[in-house]
Amino acid sequence: MRLRGRKGIRESLEQQTDLVVLDARSHKGQWSDFFGNDRPIYVEFGMGKGQFISQMSRKYPEINFIGVDMYDELIRRGAEKARIAWEPEGVETPPNLKLALANIEYAEEVFAEGELQRIYLNFSDPWPKSKHARRRLTHPRFLHKYRGLLGSLGEIHLKTDSRSLFEFSLNSFADFGLQMTNISLDLHAGGINEEHVMTEYETKFVGQGVHIHRCEAIVGTEALERYQAARLDKYRL
Amino acid sequence: MRLRGRKGIRESLEQQTDLVVLDARSHKGQWSDFFGNDRPIYVEFGMGKGQFISQMSRKYPEINFIGVDMYDELIRRGAEKARIAWEPEGVETPPNLKLALANIEYAEEVFAEGELQRIYLNFSDPWPKSKHARRRLTHPRFLHKYRGLLGSLGEIHLKTDSRSLFEFSLNSFADFGLQMTNISLDLHAGGINEEHVMTEYETKFVGQGVHIHRCEAIVGTEALERYQAARLDKYRL
Repeated sequence: MRLRGRKGIRESLEQQTDLVVLDARSHKGQWSDFFGNDRPIYVEFGMGKGQFISQMSRKYPEINFIGVDMYDELIRRGAEKARIAWEPEGVETPPNLKLALANIEYAEEVFAEGELQRIYLNFSDPWPKSKHARRRLTHPRFLHKYRGLLGSLGEIHLKTDSRSLFEFSLNSFADFGLQMTNISLDLHAGGINEEHVMTEYETKFVGQGVHIHRCEAIVGTEALERYQAARLDKYRL
Repeated sequence: MRLRGRKGIRESLEQQTDLVVLDARSHKGQWSDFFGNDRPIYVEFGMGKGQFISQMSRKYPEINFIGVDMYDELIRRGAEKARIAWEPEGVETPPNLKLALANIEYAEEVFAEGELQRIYLNFSDPWPKSKHARRRLTHPRFLHKYRGLLGSLGEIHLKTDSRSLFEFSLNSFADFGLQMTNISLDLHAGGINEEHVMTEYETKFVGQGVHIHRCEAIVGTEALERYQAARLDKYRL
């Protein structure tokens, strides 16, 4: 029987405790215990339909991934997609992936200080009206939250097709004093960049010739030291 | 008689000592004396046909401007344009403008340490092949030069239609550790942005719907302090 309606969705989610986390706040500070190991934790804030986080979890088994979204229906679809993605491995429960129902507005109630090593923001809502600027996930008030959640190797990876959101985000990162790196205004300029796992939106947009913008912002102190050591070679000054 | 050929151009330039500077190196460290006052000096590296620097000199009489280019013919056209721009003021010699023949590669032989307060890079050659990256005017080796020439209020203002040059420049500024601000991926998004004096290229490109990218990089220590004080208000954190 195909599940329909909100009640059906919630019931389905409740039956998937191996993958779906409905009580995200109760794991604050204990996500590593939950995964059963001390591997780095990367989260995607606003995972949407879940293609990115599912594929990432398969591509990088040495990392623990958490996809976060605030909509039941997206968590349900994400769970479905995750199980399909992992099917070829012969496992029903992806070992390094959780999908958590949570509002990013209250991210600090879900994750403890320094608990995360990377935050992915993929095709976040651009909130184009300036009166909604504070809702954009790269607004300094969110960067302030993220900085608290990220550890010494912490980074924020942003990807968007929205020129206005990207412009806002670059200024926001800069104003917040974050070191930016790997800025791209057309990620797939020379054909699909296979290095980067794509989201559903991205696959569709790139096919239409839309430019994908990407940027990394370095948050953690150790991450910053590594970056500074690496850039010395980059330009052969 | 219309001047033709290289010899004719050079003769014309030699007759315009009030505006044109052929022996730019001889003024190193003495540009303020040359202008006869201590006003800030803003230069445009690669002034092209000179529309921008001419209009800027009229719009901001409290600033001294120097347009730099390496081609006789562009200096000649720039001088023509500058005199036309200043005609309505009833002066033959723009009081706050010089057009200097010089190769930016040797900028440090033309300007002394801290002698400049602002460097404009407008629609510089993008040098799209990666083997020519070192020729791009925002390559770190040039940023290194610029940092030496700029004083405590020093800034670099970049404007380009080239997505690839802009992408390169953002990464270059970031890697060089410069604070960026006022990043724009479509300067004239809501119609012509009258605040910004336009170049010849810009007028043409904007008419064609091409996006103009713009960014400021803060170099001087005092400029950085002012920026940091101002940004506190910006986001109402």
